[in-house]
Parts: sequence; structure tokens; C-alpha cells
Amino acid sequence: MESERLVCAIQSPDEAGLVARVTGVLQRHGGNIVENGEYVDPDGHQFFMRTVVEGIEDVDLLTRVLETELPDAADIRVAPLRRKRVLLLATKEPHCLGDLLIRAAFDDLPMEICGVLANHETLGELTESFSIPFTCIPHAELSREAHEEAVRSAIDAHAPDLLVMAKYMRILSPEFVGAYRNRILNIHHSFLPAFIGANPYRQAWERGVKIIGATAHFASEDLDEGPIIAQDVAPVSHHHSPKDMARLGRDVEKRVLARALRLVLEERVMVTGNKTVVFE
Amino acid sequence: MESERLVCAIQSPDEAGLVARVTGVLQRHGGNIVENGEYVDPDGHQFFMRTVVEGIEDVDLLTRVLETELPDAADIRVAPLRRKRVLLLATKEPHCLGDLLIRAAFDDLPMEICGVLANHETLGELTESFSIPFTCIPHAELSREAHEEAVRSAIDAHAPDLLVMAKYMRILSPEFVGAYRNRILNIHHSFLPAFIGANPYRQAWERGVKIIGATAHFASEDLDEGPIIAQDVAPVSHHHSPKDMARLGRDVEKRVLARALRLVLEERVMVTGNKTVVFE
Amino acid sequence: MESERLVCAIQSPDEAGLVARVTGVLQRHGGNIVENGEYVDPDGHQFFMRTVVEGIEDVDLLTRVLETELPDAADIRVAPLRRKRVLLLATKEPHCLGDLLIRAAFDDLPMEICGVLANHETLGELTESFSIPFTCIPHAELSREAHEEAVRSAIDAHAPDLLVMAKYMRILSPEFVGAYRNRILNIHHSFLPAFIGANPYRQAWERGVKIIGATAHFASEDLDEGPIIAQDVAPVSHHHSPKDMARLGRDVEKRVLARALRLVLEERVMVTGNKTVVFE
Amino acid sequence: MESERLVCAIQSPDEAGLVARVTGVLQRHGGNIVENGEYVDPDGHQFFMRTVVEGIEDVDLLTRVLETELPDAADIRVAPLRRKRVLLLATKEPHCLGDLLIRAAFDDLPMEICGVLANHETLGELTESFSIPFTCIPHAELSREAHEEAVRSAIDAHAPDLLVMAKYMRILSPEFVGAYRNRILNIHHSFLPAFIGANPYRQAWERGVKIIGATAHFASEDLDEGPIIAQDVAPVSHHHSPKDMARLGRDVEKRVLARALRLVLEERVMVTGNKTVVFE
Repeated sequence: MESERLVCAIQSPDEAGLVARVTGVLQRHGGNIVENGEYVDPDGHQFFMRTVVEGIEDVDLLTRVLETELPDAADIRVAPLRRKRVLLLATKEPHCLGDLLIRAAFDDLPMEICGVLANHETLGELTESFSIPFTCIPHAELSREAHEEAVRSAIDAHAPDLLVMAKYMRILSPEFVGAYRNRILNIHHSFLPAFIGANPYRQAWERGVKIIGATAHFASEDLDEGPIIAQDVAPVSHHHSPKDMARLGRDVEKRVLARALRLVLEERVMVTGNKTVVFE
Repeated sequence: MESERLVCAIQSPDEAGLVARVTGVLQRHGGNIVENGEYVDPDGHQFFMRTVVEGIEDVDLLTRVLETELPDAADIRVAPLRRKRVLLLATKEPHCLGDLLIRAAFDDLPMEICGVLANHETLGELTESFSIPFTCIPHAELSREAHEEAVRSAIDAHAPDLLVMAKYMRILSPEFVGAYRNRILNIHHSFLPAFIGANPYRQAWERGVKIIGATAHFASEDLDEGPIIAQDVAPVSHHHSPKDMARLGRDVEKRVLARALRLVLEERVMVTGNKTVVFE
Repeated sequence: MESERLVCAIQSPDEAGLVARVTGVLQRHGGNIVENGEYVDPDGHQFFMRTVVEGIEDVDLLTRVLETELPDAADIRVAPLRRKRVLLLATKEPHCLGDLLIRAAFDDLPMEICGVLANHETLGELTESFSIPFTCIPHAELSREAHEEAVRSAIDAHAPDLLVMAKYMRILSPEFVGAYRNRILNIHHSFLPAFIGANPYRQAWERGVKIIGATAHFASEDLDEGPIIAQDVAPVSHHHSPKDMARLGRDVEKRVLARALRLVLEERVMVTGNKTVVFE
Repeated sequence: MESERLVCAIQSPDEAGLVARVTGVLQRHGGNIVENGEYVDPDGHQFFMRTVVEGIEDVDLLTRVLETELPDAADIRVAPLRRKRVLLLATKEPHCLGDLLIRAAFDDLPMEICGVLANHETLGELTESFSIPFTCIPHAELSREAHEEAVRSAIDAHAPDLLVMAKYMRILSPEFVGAYRNRILNIHHSFLPAFIGANPYRQAWERGVKIIGATAHFASEDLDEGPIIAQDVAPVSHHHSPKDMARLGRDVEKRVLARALRLVLEERVMVTGNKTVVFE
């Protein structure tokens, strides 16, 4: 049997010899490096390293040894590279949800979808046709606080590793976001920071843009301003009405969200300040 | 000898039968349609038509006949499809200017560059190596008004069909822009409306964007907010420093400006409000 | 109630006045042109025109009048712009099929999927979860001829307007293709004509390509050589294994097939020789 | 003064601990790793590593120490990261040559162009306007062998680090290519292996492709089949004539060649078999 792989994700103030120290530790403990990436922030003098290693089994021991070898201020995370439990949040639009359901069903992404949680019934049938539990918590008769509390309870009951807002059209409170920091993926219907607000494709059309795009990012207290994971674009012309742009935009959203989710599931994304370092 | 082609550019309130009326006129006057494009704005009920015709020589007659056949409110422009006289405005950056000089020298674009006008001496040698007149009007010892007046006199002396701001880093007054309405192309170092202001690539880097872009547009009173002609993008990652992003951005700017300029030189761009209709 | 729109698709040897004649006919019969596109092949002197018109109801009358006005050699097709009945052919891979099932279920494409026909059982559950009839005709114990005959009978029973090979991994006989000329869409796992044959992503990886792509086309007697409708690409690097390339390739295939299908469903694609003219 | 940076490029049969050994050596000799990339070929069990280090000055000593630490079969190259001397080969087309001349003149690429060598006079004026020596060796009255010998003498006289075929339309002999192995960049007017031969854009047009591309690669004995460094594409439609496609193709060629050249100048490209590993 192939032994489990570990991912070591390290952030540290930069100093000479960090790569040598980390790889030395791994070698002395019998690890074989399968993938390795480093990066030094030109500004912040911050060092980033992501290493996938096989042949080492004791996560705690490896963590402790790395803590001994590396600067005190280093942030060291060692974890097995495993399929993750993902909970999807949705509202009415099927394009992102449907794409992720099919990818999960046919094992295209290393995840198990433990449930779909929505504030409308619209997507229940689609979800259940994939034998995934669907929970609807309508917001209509609840205060914002009460609704979010109900949602949080439902989420906590699933104990997911990751939340994906697959076009979930509710604003999350800072407390909610803080409780799942860097574990909530969102897809934004536009380039950031352009065309913030309602009807972004209408705005884009009125401005006569020749390119539209979408941004997948971690949710932050400022909902649409969290660390960007992936972006993509599609060309448009005057022939495209706001409705056409929205349709093309959905296709871009769908593929950007799937790409970002893959990167996060494979533990390739490290967050620093309001940015990401992505080891592709 | 091949006879000259005419371009008919028509904007009109939409009503039934406009295409039939225009093409009927062209046929009755012995014209053969070489290219044809129409578009109806879904919102404004505005009709746009661009037709390239050969076999008709009398521009004034054709214009008058079309005026008779079409609604009173129609805007009708008929002109021979000719090489245009273009004046380039520049400051210190060579990438756009150099690209256009080479394209003109080897006849890649249907234009004659009648001169380069700059507020710094930096690009004089490059310009003159292509045997193009270079005029430097430094702004250092002049008031904004006096400088712009000197620039306008120099421009008027060239009587250009078109002005191209090939990274000309001066803000134009509303009067200047008004005098050359829809005849000044500008290239903007970012997507509109994102990252307005100084150091856009620094801003993009700080935001951690995964895509950068550039926008070619007609200059308007709000300099960076004029009708967009062309946009393009390049992918970036955390590996790219602000300096790398600026370098990649220059390559995008260079190709977007050349593309937009070709569209304008071939009379493919019609302006409506703050947008363009581009018949590609 | 909004009246039905008609699409007029015309191919004809080029001669002066064709646009005027067609639009004149439409105007005299009370039609309002909603969309219009023309194109003249620089080589073949062939004229192409696609017009969407509203306000005319009698398809046969309009066809006859156009036949009278246009050259004898003209190919004139007038048809209502309607949702089409589409039959999907598949084998084991779910990515294209799943994407089309979701698009159909949520009305993203103007079609009704009348059934899925496969030579393996793999995709039966997925198909039926969308309440679409699934027919499996295994090829294992049948001769090639007998299998194709069974498939053709099943297809004919559905009377589809269009067949889509959503990764159907069987070669069609020339007779089959001839019977559904320009009504079978196929998606090819590579750029045409590169990397023909088995294991295209392995071949691409061995060649060290930096870009992979996919091609949607009409099936022809030479299966992978029919008229191209749409193509797209994705960047790759040495980091991508043949398996990674295949995964990225699936995403490209999925979106190219959906794009091509939309163009065909909206009657935007005209075939000429082994090429297409696409009125976007 | 900032000390010179060294690039260590290592290829070796893979075994455990290689990264640790290399980085250990660099640390013990006082080096600070500025950039680092590794890659293991999934097939060939070949290990690749590129490290940029500062603080070490003795190239020979570092090479010898690495040879001691690494497997005997390892290929180890240590060299200062310096501006390179580049000789350009051209024929008549100005787009790639002009772009590189401007980039060199304004320091956009870390190179010095030591000369341009052509088999036609066409580009002499352009070259000399940048104060670069231009040598024309017409092939008309020489045998293939005699012409190539004259070209090789002229090249050797410049002692370039790198040769760039900026649309040089002569076939090189295997001996020539062998003498400058992996030091000759070529730009190919198409995707490899598609549309090999004359008139590639005509072929692409006849096939009705919707995307065209260009490939920058190292020249090999099979001229158009050497290791690929970079590729890019541009969308086309039926509107584009073969001439339009050739024009768009030139723009793609220009930018792909500049990108590939930058990668090679920055020592980011390692060749393995007929492929490249590119550390971006």
C-alpha cells in the first residue's frame, strides 16, 4: 500500500538556510520530497515553503522537529494530504453547484460533499438526485441574526473542512467569517475591485467593457475583498446584451470556482495578509 | 486600377426596413457591398450600420441620397477608406511608440505617422531613426495652460486625422479633448475602472490579483473613462513582483493599443454615448 | 404573445445587390430584421447571409419569394427559431454529458434532451437522475455493423433534430454520418490536425507542448476532420503529467462543446465545403 | 555593490535527499537562496533543480563541491546570471527583429545584441538605425554548403552566447545545429506539429481553424521539432482571410519569441530529451 503523503506548509520571516534546514529535517526522518515550492515575498521578507513528502508518518513529531529548527515566528502546518469534507452553500443558481456535484460524483476533485445548504428550495431536487443531503433554511421569516445562527448550527453539524459559497447570495457576518477564516471559498461575479454592487453585468454592459471576468477568493469580513485564489476572463463585444454577459459570466464563474477549489483541496494555497501564495 | 472603397457609418433611431433602404440605395447607385455589419442596441433602440462599398465615387451624392432615405435623426458618415495621418504623443516609455513606429515603417497599419510630439527628449533618437519628425515641448517651465496651448499649436500644424497617446503622461484639458472628440486614442494601464490612480501595478500586486490587463479607449473629459475600444489581459501569479507586473503590463498595453488603432484606422469603431460598437 | 422568429440562412454565388434583394423581400412582407450577418468568401466568391426576422409567419411563402429573387444556385433555408430536440451519445466519461444535462435542466441552452444513448452502463444513473431516458446498447457481442444498426434504430425512434457525441468513443460509419450530415456534433480531444490517434495527452506531454486544446466539429466521413465549429485552449507546463493534461483537457472539451452546441442551436453555423461560417 | 548572482542548474537521476544536499552545500558556503525550483519527471525518474544564489563567488569551487555531493550521473551547471550576447538571424520580415531591437535598446531584456545577420538586405536600414552591425550574406550565388559556411564564420566572429532566428527563412544543417545545441531559438509559424510546410496560414484558413498559434523552440536537427519553450494563440474566425491570419500570426510570433527569449536569458529553461523544463 502506498503510504499517505504529508504536506508541510511553512511561513516564516526569511533568513539564510531555511530551505536547507527543512529539507535536512525531512531527509533525516526518512522522507522523500515529492513536490517542493518556495517563495520569498520581495516586500515583507517573508518566506513561504510548501513540501509534499512521503515516507514519514508521525505528523506531531515532524511538526515538533520543524518548530525546533525554524525561527520562533514561523507558522508551521503539517497535515496528511487527504480528501476533504466540503459543505456547499447555494441559493438559486445551479451552474456552480451542478458542476461541483458532477465533479464530486465522478471523483474529479479530492473531496466528499457532505451536504448542500440553501436559503431557497430551488436546488433541492438537483442536489438530491446526486444522493447528497439538502438542507433549506429560508431567510424570509427570520431576522438576519436568527437566520445566520440556524445556518451556522447546520454547518457545525456537518463539521466540514471547507465551505464553498456556490453562488450563496447572503452576506455573512464578520463573526461567521472569523469562525471559518480561510476556509470559506466564494466566487465573485466580476473582477475585483471593479463593478462592486448589484447588477454587475448590467454595469459592465453600460460601461461597454470588452472583457468580463470572475474571481474566486476566501471570504473575509469585507465579503468581496478577501484573498484572491484564482481569476479568469471571457471576451465580450457590443453584440452581447447584459443577459448574454451574465450567461458568459456564469461559465467563467463555474470554471474559476472549480479551479480555486482544486488548489485549496490540494493544499496549494497559503494566505499572507490579504493575498495568496499559490504553489501550482 | 482598383477604385477607392467608401465606408458608410450610420447611426439612427431604429425602425423597420433600414437595412433594405440603405442597401437599396447602394445597389441603385452601382455599389457593390464588400463588407456589411448591423447592430441594434437592445436598450436604446438605436440602429448601427457599417458598410464598405466599391463602385461608387461621389461621396456627397451618396450622403445626400442616404439622408433623404433615412430618418431625420440619423447620423450618416460616408468617407473613402484611406490611409490616415496619425500624430503620436509620448513621454518617456518606448514600448507603444516603438511598436507603432515599426508597424508604420513596414506598412502593417494603414497609416502615415506625421510626427511624434513629446514632453521629454527621451524618445527623440528612436523616433528620428525612423525618419519621423520629433517635437519636444517640455512642460517644466510652463504653466499647464501654456504647455497645452503649445502642444495644441504643434498638433494643429500637423493637421492629423487621429491622435494616439502612446503613453503620454499628461492630463488633457476638457477643451483639448473636446476639440478632438473621438479622435484621440489612449491606452490605460489597467482594467477600467479598477486601480485608478498612481502605481496601478503596485496596487494590483498588493491586492494579489491573478490577472492584469490594459484598456484602449477614446480620451474623454474624464480621461480614463472614455469609450472602450479594446481590452486584453495577461495572467500573473505571486511570483510576479510589481516590477514584473509592470513589464507584463507593457506588453499587454502595446498589443491592445495596436489592435485598437487598427480598428479605428479601418473605420470599424462607432461611438454611442460612452460605449463603442466595433464591427470586426 | 411575441410571435415566433424566423431564421433565413442563405448561401449563394456572390453577385451585386444580394443584401438589398433579401432585405427588400423581408421588408415588403412586413418583417423586422432583428439580427443580420453577411459574409463573402474571398476565394470562392460565395455569399453567406443569416437573418433573424420577426413579423413574418408563412415560412413556405417566404422561401418561395426568396427563391424567385435570388440566383438559381442559391441555397435558401428558412425555419422558425425553436428549441431543438437533441439526442446525446456517450460512453463512460461524464464531463460533457453532465454539463449538458445540467444546462438543459436549468434552461441554459435552447434544447430538449430527448435521450442519452450509450454503449456502456456507466452513465445511466447520472442520466436518469435528470429524468432523461437512457438507452444502453453494448457493443461487446455485436458486429460493428449490427451495433451501428441497433444504434441507428434507437436514434431514429427519437427523431432528434441534432445528435451530440458527448465523448462517444465509437467510430461512425460513412453511411451513418451521411444520414445525419451536419447534424452530428463531435468533440475532439486535441487541436486538429495535431496528435491524431490514441492517447493524445500522452503524445502532447511527450512533445512537451505548452498549450493543449479541444475542437468541436461536425462529424464527417473522416471522423476527426469535419467542419470546425469552435476551439479553445488551456496553458500547461512541465508540471502537468499526462493525467493532469487529460483532466485540463476535459475542462476545455466541456466548454468548447457547450459553446459549439449553443451556436448550432441558435442556427448561427453554416457549413461550406469543410469549413464553417459562424455568425456570432 | 550588489554581488553577482549564480544560477545552479542541476539534472540528475532522482534519489532521496537531493534538495537537502544541494541546499546544504549552498548554506555551508555562505550562499543565500534567492529563487529555487525543483521538478521530478514522473516518467524518467529524472530530478531537475534550478537555484539562484547570492553571496557565493567561486563558480569552480561550488561546481566541484556539488559534483562531490551529487550522483555521478548528475549534470551540474553553475554560472553567473549575466547579460548575454545575442546574435539575431533574419531574412525579410521585420516584426520579430524590430520588437527585439526596441526591447534591447530600452533594456527590457537582459541582453546585448551583438549583430544582425541576414540573407537579404531588407532589414539593414532598420537594424542600423539602432546602431547594431548588420551583415548580409546573400544565398543567391552560393551553394547551400558555401552559404552556411559563410554564415557560420560570421557567427563565430561574434562569439555569441545565443542565436535567435527572428524569422530566418533558411534551413540549418544538422552540423550547424549540433554546433550550437540548445543555443539557437527559433519561432515557428504554427502550432507544432500542425500545418507543417509552406503557407501554414493558408492551410489553417482552408481547414477553417478558429485558433492560430505560434511556437518558440530550440532548433534541432529536425528544424521544427526541437524542444518547445513557449507557445501562444489568437482566436480567428471565418472573417479572417489567410492574409489576416498571417498578420495576427505575426503578432503572436512576436510575443512568443520575446517571452521564450526572456526565459532563456534568465536561465530558466532546462532541456531534457526533446522537452523543456521551464522554471517560471
